[in-house]
Amino acid sequence: MSTQYHPFTELEAIAYSRNIPELFTPEAELISREIGDGNLNLVFHISDPATGKSIILKQALPYAKVVGESWPLTLDRARIESEVLKIQGSLCPDLVPHVYAYEPELALTVMEDLSDHVIMRAGLIQRNRYPRFAGDIGKFLAHTLFYTSDLGMNQQDKKIQLGRFINPELCKITEDLIFDDPYRNADTNSFEAHLQDEAELLWNDNALHLEVAVLRNKFLTQAQALLHGDLHTGSIFIKADSTKVIDPEFAYYGPMGFDIGAVLANLLLSFAAQEGWSTDVESRKDYRSYLLETIQAVWTNFASEFRALWNEHGVDRISKTPGYQNLYLQQVLQDTIGFAGTKIVRRIVGLAHVADIDKIEDTVARERAQRLALQIGKSLININRQARSIDELLEIATKSVL
Amino acid sequence: MSTQYHPFTELEAIAYSRNIPELFTPEAELISREIGDGNLNLVFHISDPATGKSIILKQALPYAKVVGESWPLTLDRARIESEVLKIQGSLCPDLVPHVYAYEPELALTVMEDLSDHVIMRAGLIQRNRYPRFAGDIGKFLAHTLFYTSDLGMNQQDKKIQLGRFINPELCKITEDLIFDDPYRNADTNSFEAHLQDEAELLWNDNALHLEVAVLRNKFLTQAQALLHGDLHTGSIFIKADSTKVIDPEFAYYGPMGFDIGAVLANLLLSFAAQEGWSTDVESRKDYRSYLLETIQAVWTNFASEFRALWNEHGVDRISKTPGYQNLYLQQVLQDTIGFAGTKIVRRIVGLAHVADIDKIEDTVARERAQRLALQIGKSLININRQARSIDELLEIATKSVL
Repeated sequence: MSTQYHPFTELEAIAYSRNIPELFTPEAELISREIGDGNLNLVFHISDPATGKSIILKQALPYAKVVGESWPLTLDRARIESEVLKIQGSLCPDLVPHVYAYEPELALTVMEDLSDHVIMRAGLIQRNRYPRFAGDIGKFLAHTLFYTSDLGMNQQDKKIQLGRFINPELCKITEDLIFDDPYRNADTNSFEAHLQDEAELLWNDNALHLEVAVLRNKFLTQAQALLHGDLHTGSIFIKADSTKVIDPEFAYYGPMGFDIGAVLANLLLSFAAQEGWSTDVESRKDYRSYLLETIQAVWTNFASEFRALWNEHGVDRISKTPGYQNLYLQQVLQDTIGFAGTKIVRRIVGLAHVADIDKIEDTVARERAQRLALQIGKSLININRQARSIDELLEIATKSVL
Repeated sequence: MSTQYHPFTELEAIAYSRNIPELFTPEAELISREIGDGNLNLVFHISDPATGKSIILKQALPYAKVVGESWPLTLDRARIESEVLKIQGSLCPDLVPHVYAYEPELALTVMEDLSDHVIMRAGLIQRNRYPRFAGDIGKFLAHTLFYTSDLGMNQQDKKIQLGRFINPELCKITEDLIFDDPYRNADTNSFEAHLQDEAELLWNDNALHLEVAVLRNKFLTQAQALLHGDLHTGSIFIKADSTKVIDPEFAYYGPMGFDIGAVLANLLLSFAAQEGWSTDVESRKDYRSYLLETIQAVWTNFASEFRALWNEHGVDRISKTPGYQNLYLQQVLQDTIGFAGTKIVRRIVGLAHVADIDKIEDTVARERAQRLALQIGKSLININRQARSIDELLEIATKSVL
């Protein structure tokens, strides 16, 4: 088989898979289903009905399709994704899919099939509860961020690792869609006509722009840890007893708060979306309480696990300086709150939305959810540099629905 | 001639130079003088008495010798130095030596001979005044820092450029000798017995350690601009009508304040050293005034030139957000003051000292200068995160000699 890059057909995907000795035999009668959305990647689900074994082949496409547009996109993101999955897998083997192989020439990653999980966003839309989630994601964040930072790994090796994860093209997408376009009348923006007033407020809010500029500068310059880079609830596979973080194509060395903020932002988008998912006030209130408890637990679990790693496995003498850990985590909290705000705002007026809110059928309820999300998002951005406790984020959410 | 790496003899240096057509002819009777200090590099001064033309061949050695010790050191620093000189040369052609050639296999850079200049540190020890200096170095700092940052260059190109200047080995030297060793009883420290009390105060000052930890974290993580990385007055060649910045082997992407702080720190070390260079109180006061005026002018020239570049040549829409420039420069000022403090302290108790102070023959005067420098350095570190104006730095220096 040629290893020159070309997008696989299903037959090629099957032929390739027969040669993965850990799973299949060369004679196996394999079935392929292409289950990607076709915008960025081909995703083949390959299974052997005889044994029940299955696997995922994910192949990067050399372009991105969004809203009918198509632009070229580096295949190197497949290398980044597979290498990051391996690093994360070495740190939290239970929390990411296992990578069987990576074929550089084909931009192809062979990984564990997680079809028994659901995408967390879909689970939240169905108002499921995931009691393991806050613990799992707190652990994922603490371990992946700590052990790739100057606190948890050799500082010279970290610099070299940073050089392997320079990711200009995918960072550019974030820089534009999260930190720029929502705050001006950009062609890429997408929002419903009834939000025109909110959009114009965003475009003319200078105090908000200043905070976004400061947060964006951190995204551009602060090489703190190897981030997932796109850690929303659509990048998390979940079931009652398992959490798996997928799709780290946007990985690069950036500020820790960007990953933590992404998780909290998507829980807050679900919080806002409850306007549309229940007409029963008590039930809505109840699920919102669950979401806020989850947010608090994500931060608390992250912070306590991160402190424990720091105290027990820190490699950096200077980081033991009394007071430094508290100051460091306060900064991470502030970044988390600010980045969470930017991640909420872009999902309402920017190019890419979330189903939690867009799928609300009742227009009035959907608009209420959108305005609520924007109110929470903007408040978080505005307080970020002054924040001292995760309670301030929770209070903003709680007060927004009083 | 073999291009395998080996340290040049003077005969090889001459043979190589005959083939630089811009300067010499193959028949030229060239003279070589090896003028390096032999610790890190060979430096051959090659001249043609017939034409008066001359050139410098700088060849990196694969080890560093400091105080009798020898440790291996990457030859890649020669690539970094030559590439950075070319970038700086494209931005400020008058302020760095011209590079004629770079031979990767030999770790050899061929550059402009600046023998008509003196090392600025030697000039300051002789209490010379350099009226062009503040303008020249302010311009150098503004142009090299602005145009290599996200403010002045394409942000995706900047990420790729950052990848070319990951400099783990030389950064490690800074991390240890500036941000770590002086604050503990480290073997590498070097100070006179009469400073034992000062050293112990440094080792036990927790508030100071916290500030140093924060500054060090910026050095480790803040990829703001392509720094020179070692911009003390020994890295500056000067004469009445010319300033040339040399030796950017420590270059990497770091916080702007580290370079600016290095310049100010070395002027402040000269300020402290006046204890030993004049018994005439008025003359001492007079030269100190000159140094403080120079410090103020370096910052002011840097800041106004940097603002002008930002306003006229900024490539970043978001950076035009009202208030952002002031906030950004305030942060650069705070970093400058903090890093200046760390650069002063390490020159008194750390491994590498400065001749300005070490060459003071009178022990009592030398000790006064050392204590004065430490007092200024510690004060700058302590105020860094609160500083609002360069006047606060000037006031600390002024009050220290009242």
